[in-house]
Amino acid sequence: MTIPASAAGGAGGRRSAPTVKDIARAANVSPMTVSRVLSGGNNVRPQVREHVERVIAEVGYRRNENARRLRQGNRSGLVGVLITNIGNPYYAGMLQGVEEVVAKTGRRIMVGVTNEDEQLERQLLSDFLGRQVEGLIVVPVGEDPDRFSIESLAGVPLVLASRSIAGTSADAVLLDDVRGALEATERMLAEGHRRVGFLGNQVSVSTGRRRLEGFRLAHRRLGLEPPDELIRLGQQDVTSAEQAMDSLLDLADPPTAVFAANNRNTVGAIRAISKRRTAARARHGVVPTVRLFGFDSFEFADMSPVPLSIVDHDPTELGRIAAQMLFDRLSGEDTRPGPRLIELPVHLVDFA
Amino acid sequence: MTIPASAAGGAGGRRSAPTVKDIARAANVSPMTVSRVLSGGNNVRPQVREHVERVIAEVGYRRNENARRLRQGNRSGLVGVLITNIGNPYYAGMLQGVEEVVAKTGRRIMVGVTNEDEQLERQLLSDFLGRQVEGLIVVPVGEDPDRFSIESLAGVPLVLASRSIAGTSADAVLLDDVRGALEATERMLAEGHRRVGFLGNQVSVSTGRRRLEGFRLAHRRLGLEPPDELIRLGQQDVTSAEQAMDSLLDLADPPTAVFAANNRNTVGAIRAISKRRTAARARHGVVPTVRLFGFDSFEFADMSPVPLSIVDHDPTELGRIAAQMLFDRLSGEDTRPGPRLIELPVHLVDFA
Repeated sequence: MTIPASAAGGAGGRRSAPTVKDIARAANVSPMTVSRVLSGGNNVRPQVREHVERVIAEVGYRRNENARRLRQGNRSGLVGVLITNIGNPYYAGMLQGVEEVVAKTGRRIMVGVTNEDEQLERQLLSDFLGRQVEGLIVVPVGEDPDRFSIESLAGVPLVLASRSIAGTSADAVLLDDVRGALEATERMLAEGHRRVGFLGNQVSVSTGRRRLEGFRLAHRRLGLEPPDELIRLGQQDVTSAEQAMDSLLDLADPPTAVFAANNRNTVGAIRAISKRRTAARARHGVVPTVRLFGFDSFEFADMSPVPLSIVDHDPTELGRIAAQMLFDRLSGEDTRPGPRLIELPVHLVDFA
Repeated sequence: MTIPASAAGGAGGRRSAPTVKDIARAANVSPMTVSRVLSGGNNVRPQVREHVERVIAEVGYRRNENARRLRQGNRSGLVGVLITNIGNPYYAGMLQGVEEVVAKTGRRIMVGVTNEDEQLERQLLSDFLGRQVEGLIVVPVGEDPDRFSIESLAGVPLVLASRSIAGTSADAVLLDDVRGALEATERMLAEGHRRVGFLGNQVSVSTGRRRLEGFRLAHRRLGLEPPDELIRLGQQDVTSAEQAMDSLLDLADPPTAVFAANNRNTVGAIRAISKRRTAARARHGVVPTVRLFGFDSFEFADMSPVPLSIVDHDPTELGRIAAQMLFDRLSGEDTRPGPRLIELPVHLVDFA
């Protein structure tokens, strides 16, 4: 048997996949016969069918899924997912949930990482739309709703995950950020703390804004106002969070309790407190205590060297729900014209 | 101006993107004119060009990247990445490195999760090939090399990441598993431990096999043979690792030191030891000590409640190198026929 020339090539080199014509030539039958065998073998003599199937097995023909999907009306079978950072276990968990649900529909996820960069997000969105994604799941950066307008997305359904953008008509699944921050802060105030620090993301990010809102709300319900010097915003990694916590502890009148509004800030706060405690023990000094509350759990929360309470939730479930909302739109099951908003419950867990 | 019918549709409903023909109709020019404007505007009067550009901006035409790429010879611009588990921070780190390098080439990653299931991996491979991925980066499951033959992959370049499969001709980037396990075990033996436990993955996985090999090698260099009752294999999550560690500690003659051969096993071991220490302290009993070594670092390694040494490395760098090896093949820069193998160095870190 002759293997078609287009299927040959160097071990690691590129070569194009054999086409129906290549198979037909190798099997010495017409392309129509090959096509019939590929689509089930109707109207083909069994002997011929077996022969063609053998050639296909040897040559390794594969249907060009992309071309087939294009012919069937631009269904790429791809869902575009934009997250800000894979290194943050929160987003890794979310991605896991999205992939799980997308894979069940036979589709695949295409993943882009925006690194909190609006310009990069815009490029990735445009690129994903150009690749005919059937839907988008995005953790958005910034506050500009224009890029998410129905016109900008050419009608491709979008679900915003974890963060919302005011002024978009996109579906969104969020955590109940306000309630989580409210309950955590109310607990600290009920324990008698009157100088409570806040470590959070910038307020241009909806989670940052909403969690700060819950923090303020808890104070106002008691007729209090948290002083600005106790609020540190914009830390997006553990190192800057640790520095922010250090700056709080270095205040003339430091906070006795701190609310860290996401896992990066919680981990940074634990590091800062832990470092000071170790240093104090080494010089037999007074070991400082700070009551710490965090938002988002993480693997070692229950073994933290600093006693900790956490506003807990399930990022994998959030990912699953985001994908499910997208498929409700895609399948036409959800035809409501307005945006749909789901806020997932959160709950306080004490790691004493 | 008339917006083409195909660009209309419900807020969340599906609608197809406007085509060149739609634009031509809306702008009242020929499709050829639209096409010329789209490819730079040569041979089009400036006034007409501006008019068409305005229509394009309003209608939101987007080039069909998939169709364009297909016309240009099946370059999908997609790299398929198969990992076993996004929830494991090791793989999340690796994925981050792959995405970083792939994005720089203007390509995108398509991600599949195999959950250590060979059957699922086979399906995903076939699906990814059908989608015309330009290359594959795979953390392989099992020991069967057939699915990675050049024939099975129709010549699409493959890089195995983190794990190898005997009998494949694919490029691979691995950690120096044997040396890492050897050095860690030699340290434990040099510290005087003679009953050293091993917690690892199954030996059908190359990392599991190679790390056990390093563990045995260190013993043999001293004329020792680790007893089978101290070796626990196959734990792939923290819960089963914790149980395996418990079973070691429950032995009549328990190990005085343990080597946990990946981060899931290390975390499980820390939990088991930590639980026993807390219980012992509560009843004012003797607090047990076990010398613990792990493979793979993780966020809280330096704040582990159990003193710890780690065979450390950089999974993000491994991801970057895997992608780089793939592009060396794709670009034709690397034309060596045989497989290329890179073993990344590892180093011992003590978290006392």
